[in-house]
Amino acid sequence: MLTYSLADDDGPLYKSLYSHIKQDIYEGRLKSNEKMPSKRTFAKNLGVSTITVENAYDQLIEEGYMYAVSKKGYFIADITDIAKTKTLVQPSLNIETHEKKEDIEFDFSSNRTESVNFPFSVWAKLMRSVISERKQELLEMPFCGGVEELRNAIASHLFHFRGMTVDKNQIIVGAGTEYLYGLLVKLLGRDSIYCIENPGYKKLKQVYDSNYIRCYFADMDSDGIKTDELRKVNADIVHISPTHHFPTGITMPVSRRYELLAWANESDSRYIIEDDYDSEFRIKGKPIPTLQSIDACGKVIYINTFSKSLTSTIRISYMVLPEKLANRFYEKMSFYSNTVSTFEQYTLAEFISQGYFEKHINRMRLHYGRKRTQIFNIIKNNFDKDECQIIENDSGLHFLLQIKTNYSDREIKERLLEKHIKIAAITDYEYGEEIKDKHQFILNYSNLDIAGLDAALKQLKMIM
Amino acid sequence: MLTYSLADDDGPLYKSLYSHIKQDIYEGRLKSNEKMPSKRTFAKNLGVSTITVENAYDQLIEEGYMYAVSKKGYFIADITDIAKTKTLVQPSLNIETHEKKEDIEFDFSSNRTESVNFPFSVWAKLMRSVISERKQELLEMPFCGGVEELRNAIASHLFHFRGMTVDKNQIIVGAGTEYLYGLLVKLLGRDSIYCIENPGYKKLKQVYDSNYIRCYFADMDSDGIKTDELRKVNADIVHISPTHHFPTGITMPVSRRYELLAWANESDSRYIIEDDYDSEFRIKGKPIPTLQSIDACGKVIYINTFSKSLTSTIRISYMVLPEKLANRFYEKMSFYSNTVSTFEQYTLAEFISQGYFEKHINRMRLHYGRKRTQIFNIIKNNFDKDECQIIENDSGLHFLLQIKTNYSDREIKERLLEKHIKIAAITDYEYGEEIKDKHQFILNYSNLDIAGLDAALKQLKMIM
Repeated sequence: MLTYSLADDDGPLYKSLYSHIKQDIYEGRLKSNEKMPSKRTFAKNLGVSTITVENAYDQLIEEGYMYAVSKKGYFIADITDIAKTKTLVQPSLNIETHEKKEDIEFDFSSNRTESVNFPFSVWAKLMRSVISERKQELLEMPFCGGVEELRNAIASHLFHFRGMTVDKNQIIVGAGTEYLYGLLVKLLGRDSIYCIENPGYKKLKQVYDSNYIRCYFADMDSDGIKTDELRKVNADIVHISPTHHFPTGITMPVSRRYELLAWANESDSRYIIEDDYDSEFRIKGKPIPTLQSIDACGKVIYINTFSKSLTSTIRISYMVLPEKLANRFYEKMSFYSNTVSTFEQYTLAEFISQGYFEKHINRMRLHYGRKRTQIFNIIKNNFDKDECQIIENDSGLHFLLQIKTNYSDREIKERLLEKHIKIAAITDYEYGEEIKDKHQFILNYSNLDIAGLDAALKQLKMIM
Repeated sequence: MLTYSLADDDGPLYKSLYSHIKQDIYEGRLKSNEKMPSKRTFAKNLGVSTITVENAYDQLIEEGYMYAVSKKGYFIADITDIAKTKTLVQPSLNIETHEKKEDIEFDFSSNRTESVNFPFSVWAKLMRSVISERKQELLEMPFCGGVEELRNAIASHLFHFRGMTVDKNQIIVGAGTEYLYGLLVKLLGRDSIYCIENPGYKKLKQVYDSNYIRCYFADMDSDGIKTDELRKVNADIVHISPTHHFPTGITMPVSRRYELLAWANESDSRYIIEDDYDSEFRIKGKPIPTLQSIDACGKVIYINTFSKSLTSTIRISYMVLPEKLANRFYEKMSFYSNTVSTFEQYTLAEFISQGYFEKHINRMRLHYGRKRTQIFNIIKNNFDKDECQIIENDSGLHFLLQIKTNYSDREIKERLLEKHIKIAAITDYEYGEEIKDKHQFILNYSNLDIAGLDAALKQLKMIM
């Protein structure tokens, strides 16, 4: 029987045992395929606990010095290969990941969701019950468009919440909206010309550009994107967020919606992508029907995500395809495997169909409504109306501050950044040769730190 | 106890039961929160099968007229809201999803993983501990390449298992290999010409085609893909699976590997995509180093997936980029959000770093090794060597059957299908003008039903 004296070594006993055995392997005293004593016997012999031997064995197995054979015991491995490489050597590469490490103490611009509000315990409970009740289904490859239970739950949610009547087979679930945009580009053909809103998300242009798609910005007026801008560039596809535009906050009125639908109906190749990303958080005002629900001719592709309404890190989005495109999808692209794990699809399906999603939305809407009022009050306590005016809109999780200042938008941002405060101007989202300062700044409040707001506004007042 | 007379109604019984209950709800005879009889009791009472009641209940639940409480039973829902909107009207669309509903009793061709072997309890345990210990991190947007803990765990796994030294920042995690191919296409530029193996996965060609990429099949010899075939079409990118080619089973010898590396080094634009999809399940023979580990010049993009080694429905894959491409990725494509939920990334990281992944692989390798031997024996009991010969290879989860027959490959498949048995021929994976029958059929055994094998082989013997 092997005997080591472990008492004199520093550190945990199992590490010491591990090192002794490893040394014996390297120095040939323990040979390849030699049987090792059982954990219990070895522990007794060394006067240590079985756990100590187990930990030492586990580490040796993990590193390839030993191997276990079921019902036979533990054996010394052939270390010819390990001996060569010894320990994990990091290759000396020069990779620049461009991770931003900004020194920010207060952020007006973050559009994440507040983590404290995620219903962890419910989610964990549903996940457990999904794992215990759906073992078989969990391991079956889901339908290319996603798990049926989830598509049914989404259809029912859209009906009750957005007044949309949708067939489950119109719904395609995917790992994030950017992934769905990629699918759409493939579905609509690479020769289609896209238009997106100006101002708008530059990231959207990056996504289309990286898919090698011609994509133009189209100017907006106070009602939203202008159809004559679409005609100018001969657009086929227009990608808009009519419920709540970022960053202007515009909700597209019904007249412009019909104008866009009319535009789309002029040609077979035209479609409207309706991005309804934060419609759940409409705080005030009457809900306006989605474009999808007033579209009689199958011209609207509706897209939404749970990353906004639940948490940014659950990567589940979906799109609702009109009949013709749904058929084209199943015919040409159903070879693509669904990108969302079945575990999370079933959990989310239960979350929606057991009513938790609606409860969560209602709770969050109340929460955001209160937060919004609180923020308005703090702003009014700090500024006169002519210094800083709130440009409100009915819905969504941001509004604008119109500031009276002689500084340029860029200077305001830089001067705040010196104080470790981050803010975005509406002009950051504009595209064009000559962008005129508007002194309008964006206040995203979904993740805003209320406790620090007063101090941050006082800083803003000082530098503007 | 509720009693309905269903006998006089038209249509399926469950529809009739569903309508009766719904009517009672609308007319107030069944009240909100009233408990319904259990499915079994109700079925007995009505003189119908439990399935009938189950279907009726399911539809009522789906439409919001009833709800289920785990371990308590079924209850009538509050229909105030539904009453307003009446009922979810399905739009009358004609969508053909092409879902295959084949009448298959035995399948030689399924390459799924066996669900019984997924370590559910460990996975559930880790998921719980991730949820309770990582609340904050779970809700932070992960780095574009994936959660750091997971990339570290993968790097360590690759080192110990595949002898690869890899920096965590070379690793990009994504929702499935098809998604990663899409990223690669964007990263390598749309003018690159791709080559894939012939025979090989036609789905791969579909993926590249749908990305509007020129992609050609290149013929193989017994060592794998031929470099002169790559030169013929002026290929930039070659996509191969050198460890274990599907369907031929070829493991590319080291000489051909160096030949390919030499080919790649002739031009800046050339890269090799090494798909190592089932390397974990090498049953016999010495491990052959990956192309990535013998590549000194940054020409190999290594891709692997946990869908094969864990379960098909966990959508986590990763690629290892050479330094130059990693830098290009972070510079040009880091705006893409990571597509895998942080819940599963952290769970998988713990699964790997606590040693469960290695244990699972070892257990599965043992299991598959035994299964393989069992299958060989059953084949040998049914066939003489000249009737049906096993073409074995060292690794992976499939092998070939060389069958002596006068029928064509297509006829063999069709004759088996008449007996509800599905099999694929190697010629199904070949591409070209004139494909010559080889009478080689694929036996995927990862999900093969051992109990039915003997009968299926007897059928094969009868029809061949």
